[in-house]
Amino acid sequence: MAKVINEDTGAFSQHYPRVPVVVTAQAGGRDNAMAAAWHTCISFKPPLYGVSISPKRFTYQLIADSKEFGVNFLPLAKAELVASVGGSTGYKIDKFLRFNIARDKPLKTAVPILKAAYAAYECKLVDDKGYGDHRWLVGEIVAVHWLREAFTPEETLDLEKVSPVLYLGHELYLTTSKDIRYLDRRVYGKH
Amino acid sequence: MAKVINEDTGAFSQHYPRVPVVVTAQAGGRDNAMAAAWHTCISFKPPLYGVSISPKRFTYQLIADSKEFGVNFLPLAKAELVASVGGSTGYKIDKFLRFNIARDKPLKTAVPILKAAYAAYECKLVDDKGYGDHRWLVGEIVAVHWLREAFTPEETLDLEKVSPVLYLGHELYLTTSKDIRYLDRRVYGKH
Repeated sequence: MAKVINEDTGAFSQHYPRVPVVVTAQAGGRDNAMAAAWHTCISFKPPLYGVSISPKRFTYQLIADSKEFGVNFLPLAKAELVASVGGSTGYKIDKFLRFNIARDKPLKTAVPILKAAYAAYECKLVDDKGYGDHRWLVGEIVAVHWLREAFTPEETLDLEKVSPVLYLGHELYLTTSKDIRYLDRRVYGKH
Repeated sequence: MAKVINEDTGAFSQHYPRVPVVVTAQAGGRDNAMAAAWHTCISFKPPLYGVSISPKRFTYQLIADSKEFGVNFLPLAKAELVASVGGSTGYKIDKFLRFNIARDKPLKTAVPILKAAYAAYECKLVDDKGYGDHRWLVGEIVAVHWLREAFTPEETLDLEKVSPVLYLGHELYLTTSKDIRYLDRRVYGKH
């Protein structure tokens, strides 16, 4: 099977499955929540998480003001919540009121934590850097919320208990397969 | 269901499913490939991709020298290849020889592109910044390789044709569900 090879990057951002998280923030008495598919861990020590956000977003303004943000991981059963906050703007509405979004209390920051999340991080902003049309926001994770029953004793996701939401692009949501393969890198690395 | 809330971040990097990519690089006649789970798109214009890599990795040395890297997206059927390059080091072996890794020809760089990839990006390094114990490598995507039959006409993954590899941590590999839900954000954002 031959590949298309092109300098035109096309719909490159849709070429792999993403985990759509809900990024939360507050400042000056205003709260907001947005959907974000561009994010990743970037350091173990200290524990750092990066999120790429357009500076046009209301959430960006709140994070720039408060120097804090939340990252919330949701199950497929809450995909409507992701679509709701992804399809509306905090410049016009209070999404927490409009979509009746329940919260947990934060521990080390003032960011809203979603009750619907199976895991969530409270982050203190340590960098805000422009790359192209987005801002790269790096936060130190200062508190973690996680639903114990959604994880194995080794703290990996227990897929019998939770079905994490994934996103393909074009409003298409899905989850993970139930089948899991164990491939020990120490064995395969010696082949 | 009550959540555990803790300042101890625990196994935070395992709290969500990751897409394990193979990052490739070459410099001075040496090639290498490594597994990486920390990466994301970060800009549409220009098209930028970020990968978080430990500076201890041989691949990091090659990228720092050549200012180029490749990002390769694989199907679950090639999870052994991810485990093989993830469980070995380019300081000691030539992984392409040892694991008999087939390549496609790059278009705009000299980075190895994996034939097994359903999509791959050639990137020119535009930033190399330290965050904690990792380096944040940002590349402009200068060429895209993609298997036309693995994508729909809208360039989202066609899951009838390809099963992308996902990773949970602790050597556990899986793929996406076959069931997909369409949730139009323009509709949900108005609820």
